[in-house]
Amino acid sequence: MLNIQKLSEGVLSGNVRSLAKAITLIESQNPDHSKSAGELLDNLLPDTGNSIRIGISGVPGVGKSTFIEALGMNLLQHEHKIAILAVDPSSQLSGGSILGDKTRMEELAREKNAFIRPSPAGKTLGGVAQKTRETMLLCEAAGYDVIIVETVGVGQSEIAVASMVDFFLLLQLANAGDELQGIKKGVMEIADTILINKAEGENRPRAELARQQYENALHLLKPKSKNWQVPALLCSALHNQGIDEIWQKVLDFVTTMKQHNEFEEKRKLQATDWMWAIVMDDLKSLFLSDTNVAATINQVQAGVSQGTTTPSAAARRLLDVFRRH
Amino acid sequence: MLNIQKLSEGVLSGNVRSLAKAITLIESQNPDHSKSAGELLDNLLPDTGNSIRIGISGVPGVGKSTFIEALGMNLLQHEHKIAILAVDPSSQLSGGSILGDKTRMEELAREKNAFIRPSPAGKTLGGVAQKTRETMLLCEAAGYDVIIVETVGVGQSEIAVASMVDFFLLLQLANAGDELQGIKKGVMEIADTILINKAEGENRPRAELARQQYENALHLLKPKSKNWQVPALLCSALHNQGIDEIWQKVLDFVTTMKQHNEFEEKRKLQATDWMWAIVMDDLKSLFLSDTNVAATINQVQAGVSQGTTTPSAAARRLLDVFRRH
Repeated sequence: MLNIQKLSEGVLSGNVRSLAKAITLIESQNPDHSKSAGELLDNLLPDTGNSIRIGISGVPGVGKSTFIEALGMNLLQHEHKIAILAVDPSSQLSGGSILGDKTRMEELAREKNAFIRPSPAGKTLGGVAQKTRETMLLCEAAGYDVIIVETVGVGQSEIAVASMVDFFLLLQLANAGDELQGIKKGVMEIADTILINKAEGENRPRAELARQQYENALHLLKPKSKNWQVPALLCSALHNQGIDEIWQKVLDFVTTMKQHNEFEEKRKLQATDWMWAIVMDDLKSLFLSDTNVAATINQVQAGVSQGTTTPSAAARRLLDVFRRH
Repeated sequence: MLNIQKLSEGVLSGNVRSLAKAITLIESQNPDHSKSAGELLDNLLPDTGNSIRIGISGVPGVGKSTFIEALGMNLLQHEHKIAILAVDPSSQLSGGSILGDKTRMEELAREKNAFIRPSPAGKTLGGVAQKTRETMLLCEAAGYDVIIVETVGVGQSEIAVASMVDFFLLLQLANAGDELQGIKKGVMEIADTILINKAEGENRPRAELARQQYENALHLLKPKSKNWQVPALLCSALHNQGIDEIWQKVLDFVTTMKQHNEFEEKRKLQATDWMWAIVMDDLKSLFLSDTNVAATINQVQAGVSQGTTTPSAAARRLLDVFRRH
């Protein structure tokens, strides 16, 4: 039997084994565990929220691991405790993961004030994202004051990450002909800073050119906040150049947002949106698992697909059988 | 009492007064009418689908009315029957409308083979869009073989329109410094053709420059269909230049999509998505109108917003009280 009180105390004391155990409980698919997980989160809630939550994204090959390792090592020198989580859109397919490999950040992995947690496997991206959100709260309760949530550049997963962090950083490369890669998926619209990595050696002039192109494009976009013009910056994670500057940018952002009351407002909105996302997900599950609905749905869907039933008539019929319960 | 059988026959015979009456029935907010409306649609369903459905969007001032009038008059010369509907995001606020004014298309309004229907007022954009979808079906049953659904460039309404048409046309202007306006809202990603209007007189060179910029940007975007490279074209609706060319482009698109089986597949997917959108909307209404939920929700939302309840605990609590019914 799990002693939730004891586990809570372990997490609050910063014990890494307790934290790992708590995360395993949160991630469990076992329905019996979800009540305990809820109780644990309720216990810890007053001690959450005291971190800077940073989302980091970029396509495979952009150098996310190298960058996070460089940033993480710098932060450790400034007495920070740093947790690195992942929202991995591949995990729902493979159970395995693009981002899950701990050995990607060898140096950080050896540091006692750095906590790296691979992405849980999950049936849906939404499910993975929910576990990651709750893991973030646990890490905050355990005293980590910088939480990095990373994902790969494949669209929906960035939206999920942006909806749980304070600051979203988009890593880019200066690939010729592909300078505006971010525009493809609307990712630029959710970035708070764009950072061009591998701006080193003979690549530097191309990186500077790309930076200018991004800056121009960013001026055409409607800013998310009237108090923040999204900058495009350069760095070389490999040579630890530009890392302090990007951290300073994060701190500037947080200060500005707090000054204008946007920091807390955003977190409140994220929490409310999150609640509604869970409610709608669960409502849909409730609906689909209804025996009357299950007995009707294939026929109704086929009718809509073949054009023999209007979508509204089909929806009405499904809701009618649902309500009969 | 409404005689639905007689009304169906009137619509099928192409009688404009019957069509107008049928649309009024569809648009009615009176719950007693919704059963009749459903019956009417069921009657007419076998005679729907035989049109080309075209979505047209662009910011106010881009010349939508002038363009639609020019296109419409050309189509009438080729024996088409054309219906023009609107999805107007402003109607939910004002009951009035950016797009509702029939006098915008004076010439077309006098033609017996053109049918212009202002946007209905509605509480939600989703509600307006649903009425417009159903009105589209009625127009098809009445023999209109080109349906134009127009909207203004304000984001969500374009997504709604794109989800109900075969071909989506984005009208743009060659405004200096604003050439990439479409990128702002991800609208370019849903366009099947981009058309730069007002390419006339001294404005022509700027329009050609803008066209090239769009073409370049379009090559960077991942195409919606591997069988269609989205083109950027020029026209002058005012001088009736480029109108036949754009219609030829629509026909090319339809032919290509039909050859690759994408035409029917897209319509099937749209119908299924539409059904699910209605189901989820109605589920949410059912949930919110539940007396237990209504009695709990303010308190729960406040807890989430203030950070005293986790979003998942709040969602669980709401679903628990909902299930008690």
